[in-house]
Amino acid sequence: MKYLYIVGALGSIGTQTLDIVREAKDEFKVVGMAVGRNLELAKKLIEEFKPEIVCYREGKPELSYSPIEVFGDEGLEILSSYHKYDNEVFVNALVGISGLVPTVCAIKSGKTICLANKETLVVAGDLIKSLVKEYNVPLVPIDSEHSAILQCLQGEKHSEIERLLITASGGSFRNKTRDELKNVTVADALKHPNWSMGAKITIDSATMMNKGFEVIEAHYLFDMPYEKIEAVLHPESIVHSMVEYKDGTIKAELGTADMHTPISYALRYPSHNQKESEKLDIFGLDLHFRKLDFDRYPCLLFAYMTAKRGGIYYAVLNAANEAAVKLFLDGKIPFLKIEEIIYNEITNEEYSGIEYTLENIINVSKKIINDTLKKFGD
Amino acid sequence: MKYLYIVGALGSIGTQTLDIVREAKDEFKVVGMAVGRNLELAKKLIEEFKPEIVCYREGKPELSYSPIEVFGDEGLEILSSYHKYDNEVFVNALVGISGLVPTVCAIKSGKTICLANKETLVVAGDLIKSLVKEYNVPLVPIDSEHSAILQCLQGEKHSEIERLLITASGGSFRNKTRDELKNVTVADALKHPNWSMGAKITIDSATMMNKGFEVIEAHYLFDMPYEKIEAVLHPESIVHSMVEYKDGTIKAELGTADMHTPISYALRYPSHNQKESEKLDIFGLDLHFRKLDFDRYPCLLFAYMTAKRGGIYYAVLNAANEAAVKLFLDGKIPFLKIEEIIYNEITNEEYSGIEYTLENIINVSKKIINDTLKKFGD
Repeated sequence: MKYLYIVGALGSIGTQTLDIVREAKDEFKVVGMAVGRNLELAKKLIEEFKPEIVCYREGKPELSYSPIEVFGDEGLEILSSYHKYDNEVFVNALVGISGLVPTVCAIKSGKTICLANKETLVVAGDLIKSLVKEYNVPLVPIDSEHSAILQCLQGEKHSEIERLLITASGGSFRNKTRDELKNVTVADALKHPNWSMGAKITIDSATMMNKGFEVIEAHYLFDMPYEKIEAVLHPESIVHSMVEYKDGTIKAELGTADMHTPISYALRYPSHNQKESEKLDIFGLDLHFRKLDFDRYPCLLFAYMTAKRGGIYYAVLNAANEAAVKLFLDGKIPFLKIEEIIYNEITNEEYSGIEYTLENIINVSKKIINDTLKKFGD
Repeated sequence: MKYLYIVGALGSIGTQTLDIVREAKDEFKVVGMAVGRNLELAKKLIEEFKPEIVCYREGKPELSYSPIEVFGDEGLEILSSYHKYDNEVFVNALVGISGLVPTVCAIKSGKTICLANKETLVVAGDLIKSLVKEYNVPLVPIDSEHSAILQCLQGEKHSEIERLLITASGGSFRNKTRDELKNVTVADALKHPNWSMGAKITIDSATMMNKGFEVIEAHYLFDMPYEKIEAVLHPESIVHSMVEYKDGTIKAELGTADMHTPISYALRYPSHNQKESEKLDIFGLDLHFRKLDFDRYPCLLFAYMTAKRGGIYYAVLNAANEAAVKLFLDGKIPFLKIEEIIYNEITNEEYSGIEYTLENIINVSKKIINDTLKKFGD
């Protein structure tokens, strides 16, 4: 039996994780759930899975039983640090920088980390890697791209890797020119061609910042230098990513665009035994692979630029993006302004003296987010 | 140091194996070579690699040194049984049923078997598998398709395999209808769209008998029932084969159409460290996958039909094909007659009482080949 803590339980990854648990009650028991603002859905899922500890963002529903109830950021820390069973798994399905501290708490309490929250590794990759090593806990990616790479690495030697090839669908605007991007709407941006995901990540896909984050995550997850990580435009999202070896061999993982499978793989790593998605029909497939153009997708370039600076600039990149995406979603700025905001922050010398510590990462992130929202918000 | 015996050393796989050895003299030493009728090439390569033992089909060149020299089928057995070093590897690059007995001798003398000869497993799969188990020797495929499957299985559990997907280019006539096949020439048939290979296997690719043989080999190599092995039309020959797992995940191996890489992988199994081919350029690739039609390619169906009968009929299938392809290459029969000859033999009840033994496999094969060549040869 694996004992699960799911933070971000009401989101896209959270509810899909619960779909899997629902069908495998002999394999998984939900011990902890951190839920967001939708109290109706929260009540329904808490009553269904009856976790021992629940964290609410604000407010709480009436329940038929009495779990431990905690609240807000402090509550998240309590829930992530909670420890009672031998085989505990922490599913981090939070969106944004708020996923960082819970991951740290979960590592320190010895849980296996299944990571869907991108920001954890983007802003604090070096710190997280040290902690994972110190506390000797497994760190398993949920993202389909990193899951694919992890699968392609099974049974292979790290020293024989030539390159990681991360596929990118191109997002909702892949058929638009830079010029056509000037006047796109939020509604247009939210129409991802292949994947059904949350709003933030769908916008990050359209800007290709999401792929930039994945490059950074891959760097930390698989201990690969940035010059050996490349993004590949693959409009069909069937090949979820690839690994090239020194002999020229490329291994690829293919599947439908359904997150249930990579979530299941992370929860059951390294087992392929349980079917959670429709089967991919290989017959009739046409797959295309193209170069990704930094001029068309500058946010991808920004990730590599940030990696060159390193340290606190990872947090700067993420915070600038987090604020800019929120501003776009709120209708406060046009789409291309997202890139401009990010570029201005990551090339801003004022952050260069700030030490790369957990506290500074959080404070700098908060400050950039607040300042940016304030500056463009009215 | 690995000590190599290469039988079929002058052929396509043999010379490519020697290409690899030539560049890795600290890794490999050629101890034995069995050569065919081209004595000029034989002399050149024997002088270059100076094996301790040489087997000639007929005749012999003047050499500057004195290896052990053996001749014909008996000589092949002597060479394959020769044993002197700890770490011996037997590369079987022979074409046709003549590859069978040497494999048996090599297994019994404890050599690792790198198998390019298809007929060994096609005609005597059960016997070879028993021998490999009894003598505890590794059996590693060289064929790009089986090499791809072997690679996709690294680090995975056999019990989690759903299906093996063997890709097929469609051969030199893939764009022709059945009607257009009536009058195709030998020269047309020998123009394979992607791979440069020997004449026999190029014709087997055009009839799709080659893919049928590969299905049978995969059954034995990977202990998979036939209903879990499927051929997929993939005109580009970039994906060399795939494995589907129970969770719907498909793993694929991609590379250029150059046999140096799978040969290197077999010799160095399971290492990807040495680059032997041009790198595959992933950018710009368009890959297509289609259903393979038994009506268009009946030879593929014949393989499954043969598998249902089992036993001696594997030898019948192979011998009928071997004779028919020779007749076609010699201009004695039209292309579509190949299928007809095979079909008539594998549905011939007269073989059904013959026991599946090494001796019977060889005798039945010889008889069918001789009778067929005689019947259609004049």
